[in-house]
Amino acid sequence: MTPAQQQLVDTVLERFGAKAVTTDAREIAPWESDWRGRYHGSAPALFSPGSTAEVAEIIRLAGELGVKIVPQGGNTGMVGGATPSEDGSALLLSTRRMNAIRSIDPVGNVAVVEAGVILANFHNAALEQGRRFPLTLGAKGSATIGGLVSTNAGGTQVLRFGNMRHLVAGLEAVLPDGSIYEGLTPLKKDNRGYDLTQLLIGAEGTIGIVTAATLQLHPAILERAAAWVGVASPEDALRMLRLMEARTNTIESFEIIPGEILRHVLDHIPGTRSPLAGEHAWHVLIESVATEAGAEPPAALLGQLLEPVFESGLAEDAVISSSEAQVEAFWHIRDSISEAERALGPAMQHDISVPVDKMPGFMVKAAEAAERRFPGVTATGFGHLGDGNVHFHVRAPAGVDRDSWYAGDGKAVSRFVYDMVVAEGGSISAEHGIGQMKRDELVRLSPPQRIAALKAIKMALDPRGILNPGKLVALAPEADNP
Amino acid sequence: MTPAQQQLVDTVLERFGAKAVTTDAREIAPWESDWRGRYHGSAPALFSPGSTAEVAEIIRLAGELGVKIVPQGGNTGMVGGATPSEDGSALLLSTRRMNAIRSIDPVGNVAVVEAGVILANFHNAALEQGRRFPLTLGAKGSATIGGLVSTNAGGTQVLRFGNMRHLVAGLEAVLPDGSIYEGLTPLKKDNRGYDLTQLLIGAEGTIGIVTAATLQLHPAILERAAAWVGVASPEDALRMLRLMEARTNTIESFEIIPGEILRHVLDHIPGTRSPLAGEHAWHVLIESVATEAGAEPPAALLGQLLEPVFESGLAEDAVISSSEAQVEAFWHIRDSISEAERALGPAMQHDISVPVDKMPGFMVKAAEAAERRFPGVTATGFGHLGDGNVHFHVRAPAGVDRDSWYAGDGKAVSRFVYDMVVAEGGSISAEHGIGQMKRDELVRLSPPQRIAALKAIKMALDPRGILNPGKLVALAPEADNP
Repeated sequence: MTPAQQQLVDTVLERFGAKAVTTDAREIAPWESDWRGRYHGSAPALFSPGSTAEVAEIIRLAGELGVKIVPQGGNTGMVGGATPSEDGSALLLSTRRMNAIRSIDPVGNVAVVEAGVILANFHNAALEQGRRFPLTLGAKGSATIGGLVSTNAGGTQVLRFGNMRHLVAGLEAVLPDGSIYEGLTPLKKDNRGYDLTQLLIGAEGTIGIVTAATLQLHPAILERAAAWVGVASPEDALRMLRLMEARTNTIESFEIIPGEILRHVLDHIPGTRSPLAGEHAWHVLIESVATEAGAEPPAALLGQLLEPVFESGLAEDAVISSSEAQVEAFWHIRDSISEAERALGPAMQHDISVPVDKMPGFMVKAAEAAERRFPGVTATGFGHLGDGNVHFHVRAPAGVDRDSWYAGDGKAVSRFVYDMVVAEGGSISAEHGIGQMKRDELVRLSPPQRIAALKAIKMALDPRGILNPGKLVALAPEADNP
Repeated sequence: MTPAQQQLVDTVLERFGAKAVTTDAREIAPWESDWRGRYHGSAPALFSPGSTAEVAEIIRLAGELGVKIVPQGGNTGMVGGATPSEDGSALLLSTRRMNAIRSIDPVGNVAVVEAGVILANFHNAALEQGRRFPLTLGAKGSATIGGLVSTNAGGTQVLRFGNMRHLVAGLEAVLPDGSIYEGLTPLKKDNRGYDLTQLLIGAEGTIGIVTAATLQLHPAILERAAAWVGVASPEDALRMLRLMEARTNTIESFEIIPGEILRHVLDHIPGTRSPLAGEHAWHVLIESVATEAGAEPPAALLGQLLEPVFESGLAEDAVISSSEAQVEAFWHIRDSISEAERALGPAMQHDISVPVDKMPGFMVKAAEAAERRFPGVTATGFGHLGDGNVHFHVRAPAGVDRDSWYAGDGKAVSRFVYDMVVAEGGSISAEHGIGQMKRDELVRLSPPQRIAALKAIKMALDPRGILNPGKLVALAPEADNP
């Protein structure tokens, strides 16, 4: 620990007590690596402030002392954005103790939630008031509100409700100078200059630490149903979605799964079975919900919606859930894809987006191109077709050495995929962010003026480079490389 | 004209021709004042580039030469944001020649529209394809897409569709260094660092000139209907809205009008007549639309929605439009308020917002407080109650001298109103922006760190202070005051 770090630790200990800071390596260790074990860092101390005021004071002091701070929520990120550098030059700050739901207003449909609140806990608290916070994702049992805001999280309900940005009605954050940005008041209209709330959403903790958010609530789900549909192509799947959307706004999820990936899940995940009897090249999982008493039951609605789909020849076969257990079983298949894929060996995973209407063609074309360019690999996309966002996985040829493939051909595969995405005007990070994983690819694939603008904003708001150094955009590559 | 300005004019003339620049004072004059005649500036030249590339080149050269540029769309702003300073230190750049609708995709529901396209023209073009761009406002016949994006415009349909920010799917802009920000591709999910598109929306041309936008379309309206309802209080009006929203998502507008203001309109605007026979303290104009064949006709739906409203005693009387002409007549009353108010003498107008649920109480309380504090004035709020945004007008006492009241008590009135708004956590600019009108009030009423952050962003992206100097936030008050 540097003398400046030690001084900060001592001051925080003295002022905010032992709960607010630890230097015990065993306590810190779980938070020094990302949950997938891909990034490993070192932090000589971990702060756990108990309030926004404590965060502000820690950041103010850190700025004075020149101590770098890596903010961390549930540590469920996918791009190493919350993992400190290996050299111990930064200390961790966890929001875990800031876990109060300050208020839930079921009439005004807003809640004020602190950064450290775990998503599933917030779901439950809202549900107790008959309300629903619609954003959800696999890591809901660990992911925190602060991290979800800072990464502008997506998930499976984006089709209807948008990503985190669309659900944030206000923010409170500590800025790099230790001041508190007080923007929690939910104003539907507010044109007072550059929108700092929008700027902080998705900024990955590099220009402010989100300490609380005002979040939009929706009516609780009374009933839901899911359809599992076999289709011939992603094009047919998207046409099916357009047909359905023309008749209802209750479609919440529209996930595409290649037949090949379904087989892997059935092979590797105990207790799963195919929803349909026959084989299909592509499968689609569609969820519809009812939130009002007297509304059409979602299973019946899905049945009606599928009629013209079959008439148009867009679907080969379909089954509609007859119970909540069956809905869960459908989702269990979808949610087990990553686990099943892991069993098949090393793969490069790409969280990409292109315009929605281009995605069907892109998925097929990109997979063919990757398999042609890298003989032996298997490329497949699955996921949020309705958002133009799929997880595009390229599996290594059988028998390769895992580490050397990741370091060699695997990297080349990713560059190849990202080049195709950029050529379509797409995004190399649809929902996971940049962190440290994609920082250099972002530079490679962006016009230099765009990177210059990102750096200028970072330097303007965090001139001393205190917050989450080296993530998203590097100010000084030599010094900041985590 | 300074030598540097002259050099820029000469270069633009030589490279882009006479259409791209004028120094004819008569041609420039209409654009040197805002449309309401409140702000008067002077610009020795007016650029009218014909393409994004021309804008980029002009801004690049302006940066090299240190020439300041004020971008202007339809010149329909409310806060002097597009009016140059009086000293002739800045030149105007109009987007009027960039008026192409580059594409309309009625299947993907997006259009790519250049900055100089007039809103009403875009409405019509979308309608020809069976689509609708829902944002609309009084100035639609002059306001341009670039200005609407740069001011994050609101209008009367925000309740259902949100403001301009919610309808922008992508942006193209020229940044202060003359580079082109290419963000037109509509990606539903894109987490590649600080969101420059979000930052440019509402930035009032101070950190970039919006040259084109990808805009979200919606199905065209097949039929609409309006209800005019007499209510006892703003509280009852908001309760009525909540009741209706629980049963439908087709309410597009929900405008509140005090009985006193209705009388002024009936007195001063020829051809208007009261929709209801009796007197009511408050009136509400509600619009509902149908966009699908087979949907319930909106007039019938409004009738159903009003049943529980009457049962709850929230409405005193109501009439539902029986024709499109009657819908127009209702809106004509609403849209004539400003004109009617002008006939009554000088008034300070405030475009304010507070949280939606607080607005009913605030409107009444703030009016009482203002009338108590400034004897003889009349204070009333009207407008977008469903958005928590009203136009709060305070009329001068009878017989005062217009100019001296505006300069003296009028200013004090505004400060008093804004203080009350800020005390409620509200915004002193809900939809009109800051421009030059509210710049100093923004400084007075914001935490200094917030102003510091705005300045830091401005300086980071426009270090030479080329774009729209002195608007939104002043870098150097002495030099920049318009």
